Formats: sequence, structure tokens, C-alpha cells
Amino acid sequence: MEPFDDNYFMKKAFQEAKLAYEKGEVPVGAVVVAQNRIIARAHNLTEMLTDVTAHAEMQAITSAANLLGGKYLNECSLYVTLEPCVMCAGAIGWSQLGKLVYGASDSKRGFSKFAPKALHPKTELVKGVMEEDCADLMTAFFQERR
Amino acid sequence: MEPFDDNYFMKKAFQEAKLAYEKGEVPVGAVVVAQNRIIARAHNLTEMLTDVTAHAEMQAITSAANLLGGKYLNECSLYVTLEPCVMCAGAIGWSQLGKLVYGASDSKRGFSKFAPKALHPKTELVKGVMEEDCADLMTAFFQERR
Repeated sequence: MEPFDDNYFMKKAFQEAKLAYEKGEVPVGAVVVAQNRIIARAHNLTEMLTDVTAHAEMQAITSAANLLGGKYLNECSLYVTLEPCVMCAGAIGWSQLGKLVYGASDSKRGFSKFAPKALHPKTELVKGVMEEDCADLMTAFFQERR
Repeated sequence: MEPFDDNYFMKKAFQEAKLAYEKGEVPVGAVVVAQNRIIARAHNLTEMLTDVTAHAEMQAITSAANLLGGKYLNECSLYVTLEPCVMCAGAIGWSQLGKLVYGASDSKRGFSKFAPKALHPKTELVKGVMEEDCADLMTAFFQERR
């Protein structure tokens, strides 16, 4: 048994994404995990803060580094419901993150297409965890707004 | 005569870079200009804030959007002493910046190599303004630390 697996932590990121949804924000959520514990949670707040840099990942990175008292997250894992954009992947690269786990892919804005070398070479990458739930939440959000 | 040209505003960004230098931060400075007035100034503070996201451009974008009360900077120009990295170029892309002016190129981390499509297609790009001064300040900083 491994109760604290990628699915467990992605569920927590997904809960954050739902909080964003409820606020009318593009529903993306993230958590940062160190030693099997969540040390940062965040969801997209670009509308509320009128700030394009307020993506879930950016806030989670800042928050985790603040808690740890150091800017490198090489011992941490970041779980995020959507494939990071170029900006967030760049930040993840600077942070030298240990492991990145994302849910849904983002063919329009995702880093794998637009900045494929943005991550640190040592960062472990896992994709597609709770992919359908994460993608469905995004689809529902944008359909509601059309 | 055009007193408020790209050189004028890059000098202001360069002053910010020197402030970073004095604090032991990688010396990059930025200003955001709207209607010929500086509405945001920032310099790199990644060490002081122990936050990899605290690049000059990121802070300047957040600050400018905050002052304007809107997250899009399509009427603004950003002057930065160094070619933006992938993270900052991604943020600049999201902001739909009107014009980006940078000083020195960054062959190791610059977006033009690692995320060439990161900017918004309408963003005007000017490079090489005060290039030598901006590059020399970076070189001096890293030589001092070797």
C-alpha cells in the first residue's frame, strides 16, 4: 500500500482547481510536496489579482520557497492539474524542481510544445495523472463562458 | 529632438540594474513605460526574497498591472537590461505587452533561443539598446564572484 501516491496529491491539486473554478478563475490548481507532506497550495488568481503572473504554479513555487527558506525545490514535487505554460515551466526550471506531475495536457499553451527545454535536466516528469478530471474541469469552465 | 527615447528609458532600467548589483543580486533592471511615463521600476531580487520568480521583469509586470488596474499591458513598453528568460518571456506574452526593449542578449538563458514564440505576436521587439553597458555590468558581477 502506498496511500500518498501521485493520485493522492493530484486530488489535492484538483481541489485547488475547483476553488479557482468557483471564483470564476481558469481552474488550475497546484500543490508542492516535500517529504510526503504538502508545503504549499495555490490556485490560479489572475483575475482576482489582475496579474498575469498569478498562475497556480508561480504562487506555489513562491510559497514553498518561502516556507523552506531557500529558493531551490530539488527535494520537492509539484502537482498541477494542467501542463504548465512557458512562464511557469521557466520558473520550475529556475527552481530546479525534483519532480513535476501534471494532469491534463495543454496543446495551445503548454511548455512541451513552446519551450521543451525549460525544465531542469534533473527534474523527473510525470504526466496524465487524473488527466480526464483535470481536462473536464477546464472544458466545463470555458463552455460555461461561451 | 526626442528626449524620451529608448535610450532614456533604458538608462532608467540600467539604474535599477545597478541597485541590484549593489545588493549582491544578479544585476538586471526593468522599467515599464506608459504614455512616456515610468509606471513601474524593479530589479532582480531573487536572493533577497529567496524566490526564483522575483526577476526584474516579473515584478515590473505585476507592479504595472497593479497601477493600471488591468492585467494587459498592450499600451505599455517594458525596458529591461538583459534579454528575458523563458519565464519572463512567458509572462510578457500573457501580458500582451505593446513593446519590449532589451539591452544585452543572453545566449544561455534568453527566450529567443529557448522559447522563440513566447511573446504575443503583436509585441514590438527592440534589442541591443545600451547593450555594452548592460553586458559589462553582468560580466563584472560574475567576475567578482569567481
